[in-house]
Amino acid sequence: QSVLAYKRPIKSSKPCKRLVLYYHDILFNGTNTGNATSARAANATKLGDFTFGMLVVFDDPMTKDHHLLSPPVARAQGFYFYDMKSTYNAWFAYTLIFNSTKHKGTLNIMGADMMMEETRDLSVVGGTGDFFMARGIATFRTDTFQGADYFRLQMDIKLYECY
Amino acid sequence: QSVLAYKRPIKSSKPCKRLVLYYHDILFNGTNTGNATSARAANATKLGDFTFGMLVVFDDPMTKDHHLLSPPVARAQGFYFYDMKSTYNAWFAYTLIFNSTKHKGTLNIMGADMMMEETRDLSVVGGTGDFFMARGIATFRTDTFQGADYFRLQMDIKLYECY
Amino acid sequence: QSVLAYKRPIKSSKPCKRLVLYYHDILFNGTNTGNATSARAANATKLGDFTFGMLVVFDDPMTKDHHLLSPPVARAQGFYFYDMKSTYNAWFAYTLIFNSTKHKGTLNIMGADMMMEETRDLSVVGGTGDFFMARGIATFRTDTFQGADYFRLQMDIKLYECY
Repeated sequence: QSVLAYKRPIKSSKPCKRLVLYYHDILFNGTNTGNATSARAANATKLGDFTFGMLVVFDDPMTKDHHLLSPPVARAQGFYFYDMKSTYNAWFAYTLIFNSTKHKGTLNIMGADMMMEETRDLSVVGGTGDFFMARGIATFRTDTFQGADYFRLQMDIKLYECY
Repeated sequence: QSVLAYKRPIKSSKPCKRLVLYYHDILFNGTNTGNATSARAANATKLGDFTFGMLVVFDDPMTKDHHLLSPPVARAQGFYFYDMKSTYNAWFAYTLIFNSTKHKGTLNIMGADMMMEETRDLSVVGGTGDFFMARGIATFRTDTFQGADYFRLQMDIKLYECY
Repeated sequence: QSVLAYKRPIKSSKPCKRLVLYYHDILFNGTNTGNATSARAANATKLGDFTFGMLVVFDDPMTKDHHLLSPPVARAQGFYFYDMKSTYNAWFAYTLIFNSTKHKGTLNIMGADMMMEETRDLSVVGGTGDFFMARGIATFRTDTFQGADYFRLQMDIKLYECY
C-alpha cells in the first residue's frame, strides 16, 4: 500500500482515475472447458421465464478493446445472478484483478445490472494495491448479448476517491 | 452524476439523508408466480434445523408504510441466505433502485441480518445517481415474519456521506 | 453510533485501527453437525478440477491466536466460492460480528482470495457500532489448508477510515 496515502478531496465530478474495459463472459455448457470462463453454480428457478435465480460464477478476461482475443489487462472474478421474473435483469459482485507492469491491485464492485437500460451504474466500493481505498462508479453498457452463451459488457470505471 | 460533488464532512452523527422504507418478501412456492417476489436459488443444507445455506434471490417492492399493496417507491434487488445452525439468521447484499420523480439512483447495501436482535445495522457501501457515492447505515427491524412465506422488514436508511 | 463522528483524515498509510484475527472453517460433511461451521450451498460444477462454482455459507469463529479452540472474539458470517478452473482460488463476502466487552459492532468485507499468493488484500467496505462507517483493508494469509475439510486464515484487518 502506498506510503503516500493522503486522500484527495472530491472537487468536482471529474474522476481522479478512469479505465474503460471490456468484460467477456463465455458460459460453460458442459463441453467447452477450454473456452468457458464462467459456470452456473445454481440453476434457474421456475419463477417466470427469465432464468430468475440462476447464479453464475466467473473468472473473465478484461480487455481494452472489444475483441475477445485481445490480451487481457485484468481478470474479473465474482458472480452474477438473474433476478427478475418479467425480463432479463442481473446483479453483480466481483473483483477486478490487475497484475501487469501498469497496474497491480484490485477493485471491488457491486450493484444492479438493469440490462434493459442503455447504461447502468454500479458502485466501486473499495480497492487495494495501486487502487488502495479507491471508490467510484462502474458504468455498464451491453456491447453484445448472444443469449446465455456469450455476452460482452463495456465497463467504464470512474474513481472519485483516490489516495 | 452531480456536478456539485463536494463531499460534506461528517460533523456529527446526524445523517445527511434519511429514508425509512418497508421491504416485502414473498417466497415462490412453485405456484404463486403472480405474487412471488423471490425464489430459492439454493436449497437449505442439512446442517442444523434453520435452513442453513438456503439462498434466496429477490426483486422486492419497497413501500413507505407497512402495507404490501402500497405503491412501491423503490425496488430491492439482491439476495440473502440463512447462515446459522442454531437459529434463524441471515446475510444480505442488495441494491435499492429508485426510479421516481423524487429519486433516481441506487444504493448498495450489505451485511449481517442477526434476526434475533431487535435492530441490526448493515452497511450502505455506495450509491449512484441522486445517491452518488453515498455511504451510511441501514438499520433493519423485523416488522412481521410469517415463516418463510412472507416477511416484512423496516429499513431505516441513514446516509452519513452525501455529495 | 458514536456521537463523536468526526472523520479523521488519512495522513499516512498507518491504520487508525488494526486487528489480527484467525478464521477457522470446518466444512459440513453430512455427519459432523456438532463441529461444522460451514456448508456447501451449491456444489462444484464440472468446469475444471478445482471445484469451480462450489459456494459455501459459513458462520465461523474468529480467534486471536491460531488455536481452533481458543475463545472466539468475533464471528465471521458470509460466503465464499471457488472461481478458477486451473487452480484453487476463491472469492469472499462476509461480516465480522463483534459482541464482547471490548468491541460491539460489525465490519463488512469483500474481495478476491487469490489462494496461490502468500498474502492477498480484500476491502473492508463498511462498519457499524464501534466500527461506525469504517473502511480499510483485510490481508489474508493461509495458515493451514487441509483440503476442503478444515482451513485457517490469518486476517490482518487494517482500518484507514475511522470515526
